[in-house]
Amino acid sequence: MDKNSIANSFRELQDHICVALEKVDGKALFQQDLWEREEGGGGRTRTLIDGNIIEKGGVAFSEVHGPVSNVMKKQLQLDGEVFFATGVSIVLHAASPHIPIIHMNVRYFELDNGKSYWFGGGIDLTPHYIDTSLAGDFHRALKEVCDQYNPAFYPKFKVWADDYFFNVHRNETRGVGGIFFDHLSAVEAGISKDQLLEFCIALGELFPILYKHQVDAGKELPVKESHSAWQSIRRGRYVEFNLVHDRGTKFGLLSGGRTESILMSLPPMAKWEYGQVLEDHSQESESLRLLKKDIDWVSF
Amino acid sequence: MDKNSIANSFRELQDHICVALEKVDGKALFQQDLWEREEGGGGRTRTLIDGNIIEKGGVAFSEVHGPVSNVMKKQLQLDGEVFFATGVSIVLHAASPHIPIIHMNVRYFELDNGKSYWFGGGIDLTPHYIDTSLAGDFHRALKEVCDQYNPAFYPKFKVWADDYFFNVHRNETRGVGGIFFDHLSAVEAGISKDQLLEFCIALGELFPILYKHQVDAGKELPVKESHSAWQSIRRGRYVEFNLVHDRGTKFGLLSGGRTESILMSLPPMAKWEYGQVLEDHSQESESLRLLKKDIDWVSF
Repeated sequence: MDKNSIANSFRELQDHICVALEKVDGKALFQQDLWEREEGGGGRTRTLIDGNIIEKGGVAFSEVHGPVSNVMKKQLQLDGEVFFATGVSIVLHAASPHIPIIHMNVRYFELDNGKSYWFGGGIDLTPHYIDTSLAGDFHRALKEVCDQYNPAFYPKFKVWADDYFFNVHRNETRGVGGIFFDHLSAVEAGISKDQLLEFCIALGELFPILYKHQVDAGKELPVKESHSAWQSIRRGRYVEFNLVHDRGTKFGLLSGGRTESILMSLPPMAKWEYGQVLEDHSQESESLRLLKKDIDWVSF
Repeated sequence: MDKNSIANSFRELQDHICVALEKVDGKALFQQDLWEREEGGGGRTRTLIDGNIIEKGGVAFSEVHGPVSNVMKKQLQLDGEVFFATGVSIVLHAASPHIPIIHMNVRYFELDNGKSYWFGGGIDLTPHYIDTSLAGDFHRALKEVCDQYNPAFYPKFKVWADDYFFNVHRNETRGVGGIFFDHLSAVEAGISKDQLLEFCIALGELFPILYKHQVDAGKELPVKESHSAWQSIRRGRYVEFNLVHDRGTKFGLLSGGRTESILMSLPPMAKWEYGQVLEDHSQESESLRLLKKDIDWVSF
């Protein structure tokens, strides 16, 4: 299982997901930007705008390589001179406030020192309005795939997601979480490198199915002005997480990554209100109440 | 000139500026939130929403003190155990795309080691559409005040602002700049501590005059849909600067500052488009062309 075949698997995964998402959307098609990186490698950034369901979405593949820069050495504490990184990243913002924002990433990283490689990834869901049963469905499906590879994965990766997708300065989780993992080689994962790749691909193949389930549940719900207003505020929190806390975004922007591809995760529009006050027991404040770590979503 | 009288001067400055801005706006009034900080001190956050001119604006005063935390020690490399900090911070987002976003900050910091104190501050202008003559007026007025205290200030602080208010990942300045300075005590400034405070107050008193000039020039200009669309995109860049690069914002959010007061700088609404393409020689692309460092605005 060499790096190029991993990149090829991820490239095919991007194709698979885009076809599936175009079906879910039913109207808009992905547009592709091919780009190259001066130091080596490049990517295929695909975006879909103003669809039936998806207002702004991106599915990006990249495969980059080259000398380990000083920024990388410092931030990632790397023990090698040449790196190779490939991955698929997705963020989808639906038009309807009743359909969650969803994010997925799978990635592979390798150094030329002949020993260091790892996989990372995650899927998490950010409903504007939290439906506990739909959040449960999401987590149960993730657990099912995790369990096929290692029963220790889901419990560990669920907590990791709670900790990672957390807006410290708001004391809120980004959404209802999901799974997150990083720096996994065969040693840490307790499964082979081939199986780790398989696990990443299985998550990727699950992704459009997970999303369709959320879309089907929300797409016919009537949208009031107050729903859209709340959606804009929650999108603002999504912006805050991505720009203030998300390590991938920050590292990408500061290390000279392709800005448009990195920031394709941002919503089409967001709003900020100073000192917003919510009505007690409103749908909005009930959702806010559930933006907490350590909720056992599988049991909902 | 002890720390409490500096805080009082800043408190009065906030009062002065709010009265002047309410006059410029002509409709809305500032609402005040008083807050206290558990470890010591507090603030008066004033916001103005949906005015005639100002869509969302904040003028915040704070005076905080207490033990130097580990985050502060690490990030600010402080040689002391107890700190005192006071300042006034302003960001105004006008409704019209023909009126620039404007920012001002003056601040004073002191440690209990009996030797360390400094002033910092800045004023910068972020027009959605750049009018070179109005940008020139802005810089000339700043230079005039700077020159009264030290002729070396403006040239130095103008370059500092170019470097500070820079969206590295976009290779764009935030706007047409202005002045920025930090860690100034009498030694670095070449003027006395009293004069340094006077300089900060003079800048604060200049602020509403500077803003009124920009408002008067822009407020009657007709607003097309394309202007508002561009304004939303530029507001997105403002969000990116504040959340990704602004040291004060990042430090405040990570060190447990009052989130609502810190993020009152964000626009009421912002938009993001993937890979926006501008027409050559359009007003928009001409403005973008001018978002560069090292423009000699005083000569425009």
